[in-house]
Amino acid sequence: MTGVASLCSARRVAVFGGTHGNELSGVALVGLWLQDGAEIRRRGLEVRPFMANPRAVQQRTRYIDTDLNRAFTLENLSSAQGEDLPYEVKRAQEINQLFGPMGSPDAYDVIFDLHNTTSNMGCTLILESSDDHFNLQMAHYIKGAVAPVSCSVLLNDHPHLHYSTTRSVAKHPVGLEVGPQPQGVLRSNIFESMRLIMKHALDFIELFNEGMQFPPCAVEVFRVSERVDYPHDSNGNITAMVHPSLQDCDWEPLNPGDPMFQTFDGRSVEYKGDCTVCPTFINEAAYYEKKQAFVVTRKETLTVMGIRVSNTMLSKK
Amino acid sequence: MTGVASLCSARRVAVFGGTHGNELSGVALVGLWLQDGAEIRRRGLEVRPFMANPRAVQQRTRYIDTDLNRAFTLENLSSAQGEDLPYEVKRAQEINQLFGPMGSPDAYDVIFDLHNTTSNMGCTLILESSDDHFNLQMAHYIKGAVAPVSCSVLLNDHPHLHYSTTRSVAKHPVGLEVGPQPQGVLRSNIFESMRLIMKHALDFIELFNEGMQFPPCAVEVFRVSERVDYPHDSNGNITAMVHPSLQDCDWEPLNPGDPMFQTFDGRSVEYKGDCTVCPTFINEAAYYEKKQAFVVTRKETLTVMGIRVSNTMLSKK
Ligand SMILES: [Zn+2]
Ligand SMILES: [Zn+2]
Repeated sequence: MTGVASLCSARRVAVFGGTHGNELSGVALVGLWLQDGAEIRRRGLEVRPFMANPRAVQQRTRYIDTDLNRAFTLENLSSAQGEDLPYEVKRAQEINQLFGPMGSPDAYDVIFDLHNTTSNMGCTLILESSDDHFNLQMAHYIKGAVAPVSCSVLLNDHPHLHYSTTRSVAKHPVGLEVGPQPQGVLRSNIFESMRLIMKHALDFIELFNEGMQFPPCAVEVFRVSERVDYPHDSNGNITAMVHPSLQDCDWEPLNPGDPMFQTFDGRSVEYKGDCTVCPTFINEAAYYEKKQAFVVTRKETLTVMGIRVSNTMLSKK
Repeated sequence: MTGVASLCSARRVAVFGGTHGNELSGVALVGLWLQDGAEIRRRGLEVRPFMANPRAVQQRTRYIDTDLNRAFTLENLSSAQGEDLPYEVKRAQEINQLFGPMGSPDAYDVIFDLHNTTSNMGCTLILESSDDHFNLQMAHYIKGAVAPVSCSVLLNDHPHLHYSTTRSVAKHPVGLEVGPQPQGVLRSNIFESMRLIMKHALDFIELFNEGMQFPPCAVEVFRVSERVDYPHDSNGNITAMVHPSLQDCDWEPLNPGDPMFQTFDGRSVEYKGDCTVCPTFINEAAYYEKKQAFVVTRKETLTVMGIRVSNTMLSKK
């Protein structure tokens, strides 16, 4: 794990906004870059801005028929095309054709998918594999570039909680989640934070392609381990809220016995786990329908291989 | 203006939640009180909790066809009933029958309409008339009860910016707006703030009905004077965001020359008015579609008449 891997250069990069139409930082940035791409241009790179769910963007809603960011299942992508499919399933097939096919050599090298959250998560990179040393090196580079501002890494490779994201079409899928920002609102601080992360991410790819070596390193990640639903009554109605001592405390330790929820009649509900965890996506608006009050993660440090671009690819320049 | 007016007692009170289905504090409180009304029960009062737009609540959206809180026009209320009417127009007619008719002696005395905003407005009472001394005395009472926490009074009696609210069916319409809270999110701090304001509001009505005199007083209000739209291009797309020095600064002074917006390419757009004003509803999610970045108000102090319940009504107890 401490060697240096030679990897293909990353020449085709896409930046998706509006996978969720009411998450306005990515919608605004991609809209801007579609008009003028100078800001995201890098030597030797194709960087393609793309509005992933234009109908949802137009209606300023998360989705039309179904969540696009859960629609990239093999079943959906391989199902016969037809007018009766949900809009987002058709859109997933189009995106897979344009930027994939998923898992094939023709797929884009990197897709950045820009999201906002109502949770107090700051800047977060969401990665889907602890084996993707290219992405982990990029995360390490970005964390260094924005320090002392933090950029957390959420690792979702959980067998059941992992989901079929829009970005998973690419060889290196990168989710960028920035909050807190209400749905349907564009805040300048969140917009500029996202813009800065994207600048460093593209800089990293350019440097990598140009031959810079990135030595082995360690990256702190938060690995998804479970999700926690709100307490509810027999009709499915929520009977408690996120506890004020947990609200807005994404990434901070939650210990067994710490209050987690506050019921409408003022009682506390405590966390019953057997060890200290780090909750995130706390009180995210979009996750009420997914029956999720927060995601439980465990903090760990990954050892990341060094990487350099393979000579074969360098000679292609 | 400094005398004491004798007013009829206020026996029939309604508390509306879910006029906007994604503003969850009122939805949760009214849902709770529909199950158990003990908390809002007061001597000599009927206090009726009511879910104003149940279909929007179920879909966690602001509205189905059109904004219910703009639907209480005389034209809508008097139009022939029919299946082809927008859902919220039909609902407005039902609400007018149940709690009105608007402007008639049969109308409810007070309707509280519970809203959330994504703006950093804290607790805000929205009143529609500077002549309603009952409501102004109630505002004065609530402000005193929650001090040093502030409860602002927004007075919207502007001839063009005034709109046809759900609560306007009542003799004394009171909007309660609490934020900041994202749409579709329930935060315990906002929930408890709203709950506390409602407690004091109902206490006031009970005390008034029981004969307590409220002497003349002065109330600070913010009177709506204009609204300001986002800068946009010829296609109607927004080209700037609320400036970071204005964002979250609801109720604070904005002077001519102060930055108001920040364009995507980093320029500031300054406020061009001719005097200091107090913006509010800054960057409210629901007002993008209404082409409104914030509302301009002017702070003034109203002199409020003393009030007491008229003897006639006391004897009815
Ligand atoms: Zn999203
Ligand atoms: Zn509202």
